Amino acid sequence: MTAIDLNCDMGEAPGVEPLPNDAILMNYISSANIACGFHAGGPEVMRQTVNLALSRGVAIGAHPSLPDRENFGRREMAISPAETYGIVQQQIKTLQGIVQAAGGALHHVKPHGALYNMAARDAALAAAVAQAVYDFNGQLVLYALAGSHMITAAARLGLRTASEAFADRTYQDDGSLTPRAAGNALITDARQSLNQVLKMITHKSVISVNHRIVPLTAETICLHSDGAHAVEFAQLINQRLTDEGIAIKSPVF
Amino acid sequence: MTAIDLNCDMGEAPGVEPLPNDAILMNYISSANIACGFHAGGPEVMRQTVNLALSRGVAIGAHPSLPDRENFGRREMAISPAETYGIVQQQIKTLQGIVQAAGGALHHVKPHGALYNMAARDAALAAAVAQAVYDFNGQLVLYALAGSHMITAAARLGLRTASEAFADRTYQDDGSLTPRAAGNALITDARQSLNQVLKMITHKSVISVNHRIVPLTAETICLHSDGAHAVEFAQLINQRLTDEGIAIKSPVF
Amino acid sequence: MTAIDLNCDMGEAPGVEPLPNDAILMNYISSANIACGFHAGGPEVMRQTVNLALSRGVAIGAHPSLPDRENFGRREMAISPAETYGIVQQQIKTLQGIVQAAGGALHHVKPHGALYNMAARDAALAAAVAQAVYDFNGQLVLYALAGSHMITAAARLGLRTASEAFADRTYQDDGSLTPRAAGNALITDARQSLNQVLKMITHKSVISVNHRIVPLTAETICLHSDGAHAVEFAQLINQRLTDEGIAIKSPVF
Amino acid sequence: MTAIDLNCDMGEAPGVEPLPNDAILMNYISSANIACGFHAGGPEVMRQTVNLALSRGVAIGAHPSLPDRENFGRREMAISPAETYGIVQQQIKTLQGIVQAAGGALHHVKPHGALYNMAARDAALAAAVAQAVYDFNGQLVLYALAGSHMITAAARLGLRTASEAFADRTYQDDGSLTPRAAGNALITDARQSLNQVLKMITHKSVISVNHRIVPLTAETICLHSDGAHAVEFAQLINQRLTDEGIAIKSPVF
Repeated sequence: MTAIDLNCDMGEAPGVEPLPNDAILMNYISSANIACGFHAGGPEVMRQTVNLALSRGVAIGAHPSLPDRENFGRREMAISPAETYGIVQQQIKTLQGIVQAAGGALHHVKPHGALYNMAARDAALAAAVAQAVYDFNGQLVLYALAGSHMITAAARLGLRTASEAFADRTYQDDGSLTPRAAGNALITDARQSLNQVLKMITHKSVISVNHRIVPLTAETICLHSDGAHAVEFAQLINQRLTDEGIAIKSPVF
Repeated sequence: MTAIDLNCDMGEAPGVEPLPNDAILMNYISSANIACGFHAGGPEVMRQTVNLALSRGVAIGAHPSLPDRENFGRREMAISPAETYGIVQQQIKTLQGIVQAAGGALHHVKPHGALYNMAARDAALAAAVAQAVYDFNGQLVLYALAGSHMITAAARLGLRTASEAFADRTYQDDGSLTPRAAGNALITDARQSLNQVLKMITHKSVISVNHRIVPLTAETICLHSDGAHAVEFAQLINQRLTDEGIAIKSPVF
Repeated sequence: MTAIDLNCDMGEAPGVEPLPNDAILMNYISSANIACGFHAGGPEVMRQTVNLALSRGVAIGAHPSLPDRENFGRREMAISPAETYGIVQQQIKTLQGIVQAAGGALHHVKPHGALYNMAARDAALAAAVAQAVYDFNGQLVLYALAGSHMITAAARLGLRTASEAFADRTYQDDGSLTPRAAGNALITDARQSLNQVLKMITHKSVISVNHRIVPLTAETICLHSDGAHAVEFAQLINQRLTDEGIAIKSPVF
Repeated sequence: MTAIDLNCDMGEAPGVEPLPNDAILMNYISSANIACGFHAGGPEVMRQTVNLALSRGVAIGAHPSLPDRENFGRREMAISPAETYGIVQQQIKTLQGIVQAAGGALHHVKPHGALYNMAARDAALAAAVAQAVYDFNGQLVLYALAGSHMITAAARLGLRTASEAFADRTYQDDGSLTPRAAGNALITDARQSLNQVLKMITHKSVISVNHRIVPLTAETICLHSDGAHAVEFAQLINQRLTDEGIAIKSPVF
């Protein structure tokens, strides 16, 4: 049976309690990437979000960020591989403590925002991220951009990965994401987005902006947790995949 | 013709661009309270949100907060009236600069989160907030909890006010809000919430949790900008009020 | 031989490297309370400060704070005992991970700023802090204001404590600190401060602002790490105590 | 009579009151660069620091930063010229409001930390900074690294500048600062540092790390406000310059 993982960033509430959307979205996904306090979240939001994930059987991942609550971890900044290693490990440890206290187990790590983008294209940062995860627990899974330096760096260490693809982003002929600055970077039509996801899963390919068929490994699909229609889209994609006989589950090895 | 103001907190994006919901919600409201950088927002988010409000003819208000991005301005903290005066003035000035540069004019001020709650029940903080607004520009309107110390403090200065009521909060027999800690603090049913709003507008009263009819002055109704159903509810209430022949517009004097 | 502990708050650099004073002050103290990222510090500053302490044989303590980098953890804010327990444990864990990685062991915990003051006078917060420390590791020592609720709460659990006194603060007849708002709260004369410290150690008492002899348990003396004369004063007190034959060392049980 | 400006970064207290060093250092300098809340400071610290400067006759400058309290504005981050223009203007406005309320006048602007370094070497950012200052008030003086893009960009607009040099940094043969990463970047000997300052003022040159005489325009010398010996060094240099008959005063045109 064909299977896919649906992941969503969670626990990114700005204050002291989870955003209302989080509890609803948990019903439609198989992996939750939980903010570890560096770009959002805090002990109490983490604890509640972890409990929410455990109660729905959703796999729990750490969602480490650059140290930047000010800009929600979305702004690229100068950081060395050594410091990257340190902040990634600290964030995994913080969440791990909360997951263990709740009787669960950490499943994966997915870097957040600017850290995700920087490590995807910079081999030294990618190696630092992969090493930090591997040294903490070699059994964790690294969720990272399909075809990126992070995937290569993890493979080199024998660290397991889940290649990530996006439902609402367009792709170039070389399989890379269309930069956000471009006018056609985003897919806003739900039907078109659904079709892209289905093609990723069943044909292991995507149609590029130039109408080429481009091979793509998609082991986990990222759904957004904000926006006016986040819940509706999560519900829609979950229903459609289920209808197509595609299992929605987190990567198990 | 009966009229009411619908206000919404805006520009509270954690990062560098407005949340997608903001542009949609602007279609259904008459007043936008824009974060001034102390709990959320920043120059770029403020600028874009101000432009959005101007393009839709929505009245622009400053939404000053305690200095607390960490907790989104939602945590009560120790602050003196003198410091309160200073931070409220600074935030109004910051937004005013951006509004003027965009060719608009500031219309009102609505304190945010913990500052709103603290000033509602503490006469000295209420006086500091009202004085800060009045000294900056005596023509601005202070949006504040109906029946609170802020309304009284503003009246004493001759500062104009808009008494605020909530669509989705229940009320006690004395007209105060049911504390959030209580089980019945929130109205989750859209129809019940709509009915409460209509009663507030047409009967100038609200039905308390003990089923008493309680007089209530509601000159502006607060709609929430987050949550899975924020957009749907804003659309619904806007439509219903329009159908009832109630004008949705910001207070003009 | 008489002995006393000299402690100092460390690792409170606002940026990414320790303040220059820290390395110098480490020569004159026996206990370092290291910021854990909630009011100051970060992985890299913590790591360097821990290494510094280890290289000088200074006992390492966690210095947990309210979640408030914005105000350096100095502003009192609303927080429940349950949340207090969570944030104290998280911060101890974070530092513990770094100390262990450096081959050292955590020795004590001293709450920071507003958390220290709130827990000193509020029995429920004191109990939460003491329980968080005890549950993490019952062998740690809690450094807390002499005669405060924190000392009592720790004793109740069988958690060891070090009663803290201040070299540069004046005391009331009941042994409490003169509130900072009072004009005579601070001792600015180095000689007077030195005399107070000596009296605390050798006579186990302090002269109050009303010239009364007040009994006081001082097992650790707090030296400040900032200010124009922090280094000079630390050097001076270290020299004088040594001259008097008083050993400067962290509490061992 | 020969004259030089001594400037110091001020109002960078992490909490709610100025650091004790600030009041002392004000006695020895002629220009204070006051943090505007983006990397440090806040309304109350700004107000007190402005009053301190006014009471000592020290020229007041805005010290705008990247939006990064988390890292004290010391970490380079991705920012566009347009956003740079916006944040610089907002910070100048914020301080200007406080200076005017205190009855003073703003004199200059000196970018902080990572923004200073980025704008020094990037022509587009330099142009954005200079334009932001010029558009706000064409009479202000831009303090910037001698020989940098900021000096050129300001000159192009007709904006006045003060070329800044450093007492405790070594210089390369081309007049640039030795990068901090290099072992010989800092001068730690007070006498050597004093000699460098005197040479900068009287010979308009500096001796490079390769012992070459390099021409250098130094219209303002930056003294550091932190560190164990900041006060002593400020006192020493102020005394020596005075003894040499060199006037210490801010640039007047």
